[in-house]
Parts: sequence; C-alpha cells; structure tokens
Amino acid sequence: MPDTKPVLNIGLIGSGFMGKTHAFGFASAPRVFDLPYEIVPHTVADRSDAVASAAARAFGFAHATGDWRAMVADPEIDVVDITAPNALHREMALAAIAAGKHVYCEKPLAPRAADAVEMAEAAEAAGVRTQVGFNYLCNPMLAKAREMIRAGALGEIRSYRGVHAEDYMADADAPFTFRNDPAGGGALADIGSHALATAEYLLGPIARVLGDCATVITSRPDGAGGTKRVETDDVGRAFLRFENGAVGTIEANWIAMGRKMQHDFEVHGSKGALVFSQERFNELHYYSADDPAGQRGFRRIEAGPEHPPYGRFCVAPGHQLGFNDLKAIEIAGYLDAIAGRAPEPFNFRAGARVQSLVEAIQRSSRETAWVPTNDPDLRGRSGVNRNAIFVA
Amino acid sequence: MPDTKPVLNIGLIGSGFMGKTHAFGFASAPRVFDLPYEIVPHTVADRSDAVASAAARAFGFAHATGDWRAMVADPEIDVVDITAPNALHREMALAAIAAGKHVYCEKPLAPRAADAVEMAEAAEAAGVRTQVGFNYLCNPMLAKAREMIRAGALGEIRSYRGVHAEDYMADADAPFTFRNDPAGGGALADIGSHALATAEYLLGPIARVLGDCATVITSRPDGAGGTKRVETDDVGRAFLRFENGAVGTIEANWIAMGRKMQHDFEVHGSKGALVFSQERFNELHYYSADDPAGQRGFRRIEAGPEHPPYGRFCVAPGHQLGFNDLKAIEIAGYLDAIAGRAPEPFNFRAGARVQSLVEAIQRSSRETAWVPTNDPDLRGRSGVNRNAIFVA
Amino acid sequence: MPDTKPVLNIGLIGSGFMGKTHAFGFASAPRVFDLPYEIVPHTVADRSDAVASAAARAFGFAHATGDWRAMVADPEIDVVDITAPNALHREMALAAIAAGKHVYCEKPLAPRAADAVEMAEAAEAAGVRTQVGFNYLCNPMLAKAREMIRAGALGEIRSYRGVHAEDYMADADAPFTFRNDPAGGGALADIGSHALATAEYLLGPIARVLGDCATVITSRPDGAGGTKRVETDDVGRAFLRFENGAVGTIEANWIAMGRKMQHDFEVHGSKGALVFSQERFNELHYYSADDPAGQRGFRRIEAGPEHPPYGRFCVAPGHQLGFNDLKAIEIAGYLDAIAGRAPEPFNFRAGARVQSLVEAIQRSSRETAWVPTNDPDLRGRSGVNRNAIFVA
Amino acid sequence: MPDTKPVLNIGLIGSGFMGKTHAFGFASAPRVFDLPYEIVPHTVADRSDAVASAAARAFGFAHATGDWRAMVADPEIDVVDITAPNALHREMALAAIAAGKHVYCEKPLAPRAADAVEMAEAAEAAGVRTQVGFNYLCNPMLAKAREMIRAGALGEIRSYRGVHAEDYMADADAPFTFRNDPAGGGALADIGSHALATAEYLLGPIARVLGDCATVITSRPDGAGGTKRVETDDVGRAFLRFENGAVGTIEANWIAMGRKMQHDFEVHGSKGALVFSQERFNELHYYSADDPAGQRGFRRIEAGPEHPPYGRFCVAPGHQLGFNDLKAIEIAGYLDAIAGRAPEPFNFRAGARVQSLVEAIQRSSRETAWVPTNDPDLRGRSGVNRNAIFVA
Repeated sequence: MPDTKPVLNIGLIGSGFMGKTHAFGFASAPRVFDLPYEIVPHTVADRSDAVASAAARAFGFAHATGDWRAMVADPEIDVVDITAPNALHREMALAAIAAGKHVYCEKPLAPRAADAVEMAEAAEAAGVRTQVGFNYLCNPMLAKAREMIRAGALGEIRSYRGVHAEDYMADADAPFTFRNDPAGGGALADIGSHALATAEYLLGPIARVLGDCATVITSRPDGAGGTKRVETDDVGRAFLRFENGAVGTIEANWIAMGRKMQHDFEVHGSKGALVFSQERFNELHYYSADDPAGQRGFRRIEAGPEHPPYGRFCVAPGHQLGFNDLKAIEIAGYLDAIAGRAPEPFNFRAGARVQSLVEAIQRSSRETAWVPTNDPDLRGRSGVNRNAIFVA
Repeated sequence: MPDTKPVLNIGLIGSGFMGKTHAFGFASAPRVFDLPYEIVPHTVADRSDAVASAAARAFGFAHATGDWRAMVADPEIDVVDITAPNALHREMALAAIAAGKHVYCEKPLAPRAADAVEMAEAAEAAGVRTQVGFNYLCNPMLAKAREMIRAGALGEIRSYRGVHAEDYMADADAPFTFRNDPAGGGALADIGSHALATAEYLLGPIARVLGDCATVITSRPDGAGGTKRVETDDVGRAFLRFENGAVGTIEANWIAMGRKMQHDFEVHGSKGALVFSQERFNELHYYSADDPAGQRGFRRIEAGPEHPPYGRFCVAPGHQLGFNDLKAIEIAGYLDAIAGRAPEPFNFRAGARVQSLVEAIQRSSRETAWVPTNDPDLRGRSGVNRNAIFVA
Repeated sequence: MPDTKPVLNIGLIGSGFMGKTHAFGFASAPRVFDLPYEIVPHTVADRSDAVASAAARAFGFAHATGDWRAMVADPEIDVVDITAPNALHREMALAAIAAGKHVYCEKPLAPRAADAVEMAEAAEAAGVRTQVGFNYLCNPMLAKAREMIRAGALGEIRSYRGVHAEDYMADADAPFTFRNDPAGGGALADIGSHALATAEYLLGPIARVLGDCATVITSRPDGAGGTKRVETDDVGRAFLRFENGAVGTIEANWIAMGRKMQHDFEVHGSKGALVFSQERFNELHYYSADDPAGQRGFRRIEAGPEHPPYGRFCVAPGHQLGFNDLKAIEIAGYLDAIAGRAPEPFNFRAGARVQSLVEAIQRSSRETAWVPTNDPDLRGRSGVNRNAIFVA
Repeated sequence: MPDTKPVLNIGLIGSGFMGKTHAFGFASAPRVFDLPYEIVPHTVADRSDAVASAAARAFGFAHATGDWRAMVADPEIDVVDITAPNALHREMALAAIAAGKHVYCEKPLAPRAADAVEMAEAAEAAGVRTQVGFNYLCNPMLAKAREMIRAGALGEIRSYRGVHAEDYMADADAPFTFRNDPAGGGALADIGSHALATAEYLLGPIARVLGDCATVITSRPDGAGGTKRVETDDVGRAFLRFENGAVGTIEANWIAMGRKMQHDFEVHGSKGALVFSQERFNELHYYSADDPAGQRGFRRIEAGPEHPPYGRFCVAPGHQLGFNDLKAIEIAGYLDAIAGRAPEPFNFRAGARVQSLVEAIQRSSRETAWVPTNDPDLRGRSGVNRNAIFVA
C-alpha cells in the first residue's frame, strides 16, 4: 500500500531522552496529521556505532552510525535532527546547513546568543528550514490564548506575569553538573527560556529588561569528594517592558520545592484576562469584563476539537493531550514549513532571540540596569524570519 | 537494522475514530515500551476495498481489504483488532477466535452480556488472548490508587462514589442514533460501563445493585422530519454493595451540560481517602488520617516516573500523559499478555462482567429491586480469567 | 444615642455551641443590616441558674434562668430561640407558640415529621413567625443560583446531584451517641437534611424518592466497656424525581474520610449548568452553552456586592463571608418576616417538609420502593406557608 | 447580669466602610473570645455632629461628636480608634498618644515612613499600646504557615513569591482619586503594603530591594471634564533579599483584570513548600519532601479547630471564617496586648516598617539601584517593639 507522498529522510543525532521523544514524535505525527511528506526514520548517529545501533533498533530507524559527520554528508538525508549535548549544537548545525539539510535542533539552540545568530544567518543564507524544540508553544490552548489576545478579546494588554518553576535542582546534595556551568547554564537559560518564549509568543516583543539572577545553593559536591562553587543562577527573574506598552515579569526557578511543571502565565488587559498553568495544560482560564454583572468569573476552558489541532488527536473534548502529543504537533508544523505550506513555527532566528533575552537579563542583573532587547537583528528581517513569535 | 523480536501481524477491522486511535497506539507503543514483539501493521479491513485502502495508507498498514472474513482467515495475521460497530463484534470475534487469532475488541464487547460470555468462553477454550479497550484503566494514577487501596493505605474501605458524566447528548435537537437503540444503548451502557469498570478495578467485585435508569429527553428527531420516542436512559444510576462490605454509588449521565470528561471517583476508608477526576487525570488526591494534626489535607499527587509506566513516556514528573498515551499502555499490556509475561489486562471475561453489571442495573431499575451481581461465572474461574479487575 | 426602632426581646434556650452561634448572630446582625427592630438580648435559659448565668455573662444577655418555662411565660420576651437538644424542641416550641411568641428553632425541627407538622400548624394557627436554622441556604451564592435557575439561565432543568459528606463519625472507636439513636439519628437526618433542603430550595418540590440507607460501622463502644449495635445510617442516599421533571440524587455521608464540609451540588439544564461546593462557599461555577464556541467553560463567580446581601458585609468583592456571617443573614431574614417585610425564610412548615423527606427516604430504603413525597400538606397552603423553599 | 471585667471605652473616629468594619469587630469579638475587658462602644466622632450621631445609632455607640479633639480629650475614652482619611492619621494619633490613649489605626499608618516612625516613637515613649489594621495577618492559616516555617517544616527557606493583585483600578475611565495622589498613593502603597507585611511576617526581615513601579494608565478624568496625568504606580514590583538568605519577589497590581483578592504567596524551602491564596483563605497548601515517594503532593489543609483561634468561631472544621472574622481576631489580639497578656500583634513600629519598605522600593525604582532596608530603627529595639512581624 505505497504512500504516494514524497519521502523525507530523517537523520537523528543523539539517542538520549530527547532523542527518544523525537523518535516518538516522528512515529506518532503521521498517525495524527495529514503530513506533506512520508517521514522515513533513516539513520541514528551517536557517539559509537554500538550505541547508535541499539538506538536505531529501539526507535525503528533503518541505519546507524557512530560518525555524525558521515550522516550529515549522506545525500539521502533530508533533515538533520540534533538532540546531542548543547555544546555541540553549533558545529553540527553549521555542518548540516552547509550540506544543504534542513535542521531541527533541541533547545537551547546554543549557549551564546552570538552563536545562535550565526546559525540562524547561515540557515537563512542557505535557504534551509530550521526549527528549535520549544514544544510548550505547540499547545492548542496557547494558540487559543494568542488568537484571543490578537483579536482584542482582552482589550489593551496591560500586565503580564510568567513563571517557570520546578524543583529538579532543589537537592543541595546533588552534584555540580553541566547545568551549573557558567557557559550557558543556570535556571534562567534552562527554563526561563520557556517563560520568555511564551511571553513573546503571546504579547510580542519585549523592549527592555531589568534582571535579578541569584545563586541560592552556592556550592555543590564536585563528584570527587569535594565541593565546587556554583555561579549560575538558581532563581532568575526579570521585570519586563513590552513594545506594546505592557509591563511584566518572569521568574525562572529550579529550586521551587514541590513544583514539577509550574510554567504559568497571567495576562491582564483592559477588557479581560487569561490565566494558564502548564500543570493543567489542557485548560485555559478566561475572564471577560463583558460578562453580565454578578456572573463574571474566570471560565475554565477545556481543550477540545474547537482548539486545533486537538481534533486530530481526539474527536471529543476533555480527553486531554499529553506532553508527547505536543511533540507531534511541533513536527507537523515543521514539515508544513519545509513544504512551504506555512511559516517556520519556531526557527533558529527565534531561538537566537530567546537566547539574547536570556543574556540581556543576565547582563542587566550584573549591572543593575535596564537593558534594551529590541535589537531588530534579533527579530529577523521581514520575509526572512517568519516564525511563531513574530508572525502576526 | 533488523529487529530480532518475533513479529506480530495486526489485522485491523474498522478505520473510523477508534480505528485511528488504535493505529496511533500501534505506532507509538513500540517507541515507548520494550515490547516482546515487533508490531507489524499488516492489513486494514473495512466495508469496501476503497475505504480500506485509504485507511491503510493513512495508518501505515501494508495491505487492505473490503472483506474482513478474508483477513480473519489470512494465516499471516496474528491479532484481529475489532473497531467495527458494536453490533458486529460478536460475529467477528467468534470468527477470529475460531481461526486461532488473538482478539482485541473495542468496548462494549457486545450489546448483551450473554453474547459477551459466549465470546469469553470461546476465547478461553481456544486459548487465545483477548482484550477489551477499557483505556481509562490504563492510567498510572489508577494503578497507584489500586495499589494504595490494596496495601491498606486507606484502611478498611467503606464508601465509594463514581461518576461518568458528559454532555454529548445534551442537545435535544440532535437526532436519534444507535446510542438510543434499546439493544445496547443508553448512558449506562455507553459510559456507565466505565464507571463500573473503575469501581471494580479499585474495590473488587460488586455484590448487588439497586438501579435507577431515567429517560429525560423522551423523544428525538428521527432524521425524516418526524420524531422518535426514546426509551434508553439519559441518566443511569445505581446504589452498590461491594463484596468487601463497602457501600457505593455510580452515576452515568450523558446530558450533564458543561461536563466533558467527568469520570470521577471518591473512595473513603477508615484511614484515608482518594479523590480522582478524569478531567485532570494526571493527578490523584490522597488524604491520610495519619498525617499530623493541623497538617492533614488532600494532597495532589502529580503523575511522574514514580508511577509506572509514566517514566517510559517522560523522565520528568508533571509533564502529563495524554489520552492517546493510555492507548499505548493498553497495547503494551496486551502484548505482554500474549507473550505470557503477564495476565490479560482486561480480557473478554472482564468485558462480559461489566456488561452483566449494566444489565443487572437496568433490570433492577425496571423491577425496583436489589439485584445480585456476584455470579461467579461472570468473574471467571481461577486460572482461566486473570485480568485487571480480578487479579489480586 | 437612643435607637428609635421598636425593641425585640430575645429569649435564648440553650447555651452550647449553637447557642453561642445564635448569640454571635444577634450581636453581629445589627452591625451589618438595617434591621426593623432593636435586638435586645434579654434572657438565657439553661438547665440550671448557674449555667444560664455564666452564659448570659458570656453572651451579653441581661437575665438568666434555670427554668425555660418561666422565660417562655415572661411577657417581655418577644422571640423564643431554641437551641436545646432536639428531643425537647417540640415541647418548648409548642409552649412558646401557646404563649404567643415568635419561635426560632435550630434544626432538625423535630425527630419525627408528624411532630414538626404539628408545630408548624400550631404556629400558623397562632399567627406567630417561625424559623428553622438552615443557614447554608442563607448564602448569597445560593440565592444567585436559585435566581439564575428561575430566570431560565440554565434552560430546562434536567439533572441534579447533591452531596453532604463529612468525616466526623469516621472514627469507629468513637462511642455511641444521640446521633446514633434510631429516633431521629443517622447521617441522612443529620446532614442529608441539608442536602434535601438545598435541592428543593433550588429546584422546587421533590415528587418521589428511592432510598438506600446503610450502616457501615455496625457497632460502637457503649461508653461502659461494651459495645452497642448501631442501626442508624452512616450513608444515606436517594434517587429523586422532582416535580419539574428533573432527575437527581442526594448523598449523606458522615464517614467520608477527609471531607470536612462537602455540601456540594451540580445542576444541569438544557442551556447551562451550575456547580457549587460548600468547601469554597463564596464561589459559584456557571457554564453557559451560549458562550462562544471555543470559549465555553465553567466560570468561577466570586461572591461580591453584586450578590446581596454580601455588600452589607464588605463593599469589595472577593473578601469572603464566613460561616457565622450566614447566621447574621438568617437572623436578618427572620426579623424582616416578623416585621411583615418579607416571607419567612425557612419556617416550621419548611422544616417539617425536610423532615418528611428524610422519613420518606428511610421508609423507601426499608421497603425498596419509590415513595411519593408530594403530600400537599407538607408543603403548606398558599397564603399561609411562604418560605424560602416554596416561594416563587 | 453585670460583667465583672474591667471596662474599655472605645472612641471611634470615622464612620465610613472601615468604621463600620471596626464597629462590627467590637460587637463580634466579645461573642467569640474571652476578652480581658468589657468593650464599651462609647463615642463616635466624625466630621459633623449629625454624621456622628447617625453612625452612633447604627453602630450601637452611646455618644457622638463632630469634634474628634473633644473625644480624644475625654477622660472616659481608653482607646482611640482611627478610621479617618490617611492624611489625618498622624495628627490624630499624636494627639491621642499625648492624651495617654491607646491608639488603633487603620493602614496605612501614614503617607510617609518618617511620620510613621514619629508616631511609633511617641507611642513607645508614652507607653501606650498601638495597633495597625493589617487584618490579613490575623488569618489562622497564616499563623500556621509561620509556625511551620519557624519549626523547620520547610527546612532552610530559599525563595518567596508574593502577590497582591486586584482590579479595582482597571477602569481607565474612573476618575483620578486620592489613591493616585503622589503623596502616599499608588498600588504599591495601597496593596503592596499587604504583600510586604505578609512577606516579613512569614520570613522575617527583608534586607534589600530592587523595585520597578510602573504607571500603565497614564491619565485619568479629573472630574471636571478634563484629564489629569497619573504619576503613581499601577503595578509595583520588587526583587527581594531576606536577611535569612532567601530570595524573593512581590508584586502589587491594581489593574489585574479579573482578580478580586489575589493576595497570594508561595514559599520554597529545602524540605518543603507552602502555597496560599487569599481567594481561598481558609486553605493552606503544604508540600513535604519527606512524604513517601509516589505520594508527594501539595496537601490542601482546610482551616479547623486545630488552627487557633478558629475553634473560637466554630467547633467543626471546614466551615470557614470570613473577612470580618479576621477583624474580630485582630481586636482580640489588641486587647490582649493592652492587658499585657501578649505582645502587640502589629504595632505602629511595624506599620512604620512596612511604610519604609514601600518607600525603599519606590526609591529603588526611581534610581534603578538596590536599596538596603535593614535599618534597625525601623524594626524597633528589643524590649520595646514586640509585634507580629518581629517577635520570634
């Protein structure tokens, strides 16, 4: 029963947790969406042939290699999907772009914004399609929230409060890891990036920031019997001014004991408000000042077929999407962009933008000064950078 | 990169919504679990070659046929998966069992309990493995609830309240459908079956019932300009006595305006309590009377890797499974049963049991009398019927 | 600074917890409402002069007596307020009515409905104003719910689910008390009465019931080293048919471990629904099917000045009333009835009605039969019985 | 039935909303608590004899005067209770202190911290007892939270997030009022003061702040057909460092559309966390990292007799206190302080402290600089200033 769609051969680099999640997405997306391509899980590359082979078997890929450069050079590969450690993203992506591949990369795109910009510009010059894995943005309820904000349901937008808090670093006895590395580490970079991406996805560009990055657990075991001083932030916060005039704040906190997925926001306008928590991400709470007196209140909207593409997963409301379903939506959006059906949902330029916001907040915190973030280069040029954050 | 696992060829009958959901599960389960078989999506059967072929392409199956009997007879097929209309389940399942196939069937297993018992007995006699798609039971938080109840965390179990309420039949102008057909229709059969399955999954066998089945929207458009009298229940309720001595109630309601997935329960014991809502099915609320005075309260346990098999989907807590993920868990459990690794999660005997409970409540309502439900035949004989509901 | 309002002298019988609550209400109501009378805390009667005197001092009453009959006979007393043990209500109330006093009585009005009817008829014949302390009905959010139902905001009312569950009898080692006495005891009579009152307050008369009263903790310590068999219900439930055609259920449960005040209801109509929990009784959740597609959901209405008489307590919304505030509302409503400003909020006839529903359910449970409850005598005659439940 | 307690004559200045609330508290507190004094509502003073007389009648006070100075001079008055406009607090309080009266004053104590310090020092020198009406702090669940934090239930305290958001100034067409007056106005002063008081009540002294005060609605109608420029903040935020090493933030927002009483906090420690919302102020949510694996979660503790003085209001848990009940607790605490039974719950020194924090944040915002707030004078000297915030 051959599928007549054109084939898209996937080359996956990395087979850890995110690699598995991507493999899951490549398998599930075609069962849910009418994709423009037949996805073929072609090759897995990892640090050795053995590791790659095991992953290929587990993930259903046809080939395996211990040499990612060989895979990038393989003319059969259409998309290079990078889930390797962050420090390798730049080199791998630039090589793939140079080989004319579309590149899909896990977040953060690069530890430094300058690298991310270089990667974005290389992709734009080469005309390949890119994607960074900001999967929380693929939630239909966030699309609904953005649509409502843009349609004026909330009136003029006035204030915003965003949080991304978890407790995975709350154990002071857990050893120093790459997350604590001053080059790219810290709560703000790791999860604050989500809070920043959501903020701009919903309200548009942030104009300036005043940051406060704090190290609370100041030393950790070094894994060799001693301790190591921690310099990265456990809690990173910022006051925000948006270009639309709204004021806001974000908080990143990875020692928020008890919180597992507090990626929340609250946005207040002149006519209404929205409240959201990733802890219950199939719900969106909406307050309308236009409701009749005595009957106003936040209404708990449950995800359903009226919130596309929910209906692709389930015809009935209230059944709820899961975290992995968001990955299928992310992949479908990327394939539409490759096929020219739609703008890139969240391309390298957008990834660079988020990284630049992180760095602006870090610098602001060091200098105790408001730092402007509205560098037009970071937002891309019209016609080139069309992505979820900045596409109207 | 050949997988060395034995192959399991799937023959799927039906390609509507549930067919699609099953196809999704067959694709996603191997990405999540280390299954004992390589699942091969072999053949789709539907009411015509054309319909079947289109589905096969969409679902990634290799073959298609308009003749389900031919597929059932195909020696290559290992598992027959029935998502066809309910009225056809019996005939298809008996034919597949006769051909020595394992049979996976959507709920309800059959419109009449007697048919379901016949199907269960045929399967047991043939030694094939069966499964009915009670996917809400595949939720890790329900497994946790059952484990806690069995381990005595709640002490002696005293009372239970179960609900399954939605509003998909609340529109009185919606036409009469198969759901309103007296043979197998009604809210109690359609969704009350879930409430009953959950009740026995958690607390063990119900001993007797006192039912109340009510038709609220008494006529519906017949689709030909007239109206048709409705005799099936819109709201079906029952008082329960469990064999363990607990008292309880269940409610099925498909005109519960505003409710999309209120599959909820509350269970009270001498030492603790559990509260659950399918509206937020990644949470389980637990009250322990042993907590210190002044600090007692229902604690909101969020699904995480400590609730297997959640960790197969995501290594971090709080990310949330979706409805379709439960289908992957269901399939993995079934494959384990086929391989002899574990009991059948929810076999035909269990499906027959639930159907018999529905019928007992319907009869009780007609007769206004308590009806016993502890017929041992319906619960299976030790060593033969090992499934989720009755396996200790 | 003399108040020119007419004086209303209060005679309070009983000084236990409910006596204290009433004293609190008499003190707070005049600070909140513009009452038609000056409330004078005149006399406390209790089982001895000493007990009564101590209470009078604590509650701010001018006089005290160990002889309630003397107080009832005192021509200065205008209102006799009975918070003595239930078994004494009838005798005290009839004596007060005979003396021409208005009578305010805590719930339950009497252990037997027949007694309650006798008390109601005596009061009606004497032309005095009566009140039973169903204070949950004094919540502004319940008034809002009833107003919305009557105004058609929910369309045709179809189904109802009411619960009153607590855990104050969950300890099996707690001794047998008056609550377990077959004459008037049991969960249904004690708290199911609240669930029944709320049901009729919102939806109007119940036409018939099918009950299930179960004893779960079958014996309790007798306080003398032995045990005593318990015959009253720990869990009392009923299926309901309302006169307006709606179907429903109520549950009373005093062994619902973990629940402290689960006096909840859910009502579904053809156009909307309401959900309420006494656990958060300053909120009412409203679903409107008329909200725009994609934006429907239960909206959490917070109590505020738009829900009279909330504004009497606080000019700003969201500050929340407390349990004792409901008592002030109850007293204000009663004084308005005494002054002829308004119907009696919840008079003896209404108290008799609730008691008759309890007995109908108890009988239905014993007989396993539907029992009609629409005896017009119990609902009073037009022009005589004007109260919260039946006043349109 | 004379009460043998010593009399405490109250002189109330002001009869607007807060005056009414205080009158309510004076009437209800004696019904709930065993107070050390008999409270006598002696005199109401307001801007005219007529206004004062009407209020005295409504509130149950014996005397009235249009001259507050005369009342302050009246030797019968024991406590002067100031609910007059903020601008008058200083003059009235200093006069009352000079006359040797105990002084109870609504918040804010004074528009400028320097004035508040002067008032506190005068009271300390005169040896009179003072109280500022920070009634949210009188919530038994906040006392529980503080007790748990101090007892180490949360381990080392690491981060804090406090909010006080409402929407009472969200209407841009509402005219310029005293709230917008640069002398003492703005969201931070008006409601941020609550967030700051709660933060220090729970965690102890804040050491330094970095503020961001923003005006979002930049002009308002002047009431005379024109508009008036607004300079005070609609949203005031601050990053915090506590002396105990914790990092935190507070937000004050009076244009938070949809929010009526979002006075919330979240505090994270090394062993646990607490989450609270004033929207449901009878609940406290507690996460313990010491709960068994797989059973951890925020537990919803409902207020009950185990949280004193809740049991004074109601013997059963879950019935809920209301906003006005907190005022009765506040008064009871003040009377205990006057009687020497306990430290002042929240005295003028504490009021000055909160005002100084507001000013520090305002200055920090203007200067974009961290501002220290640990001036020991503002926290009082040991033995002199014993109040809720700083008493261990």
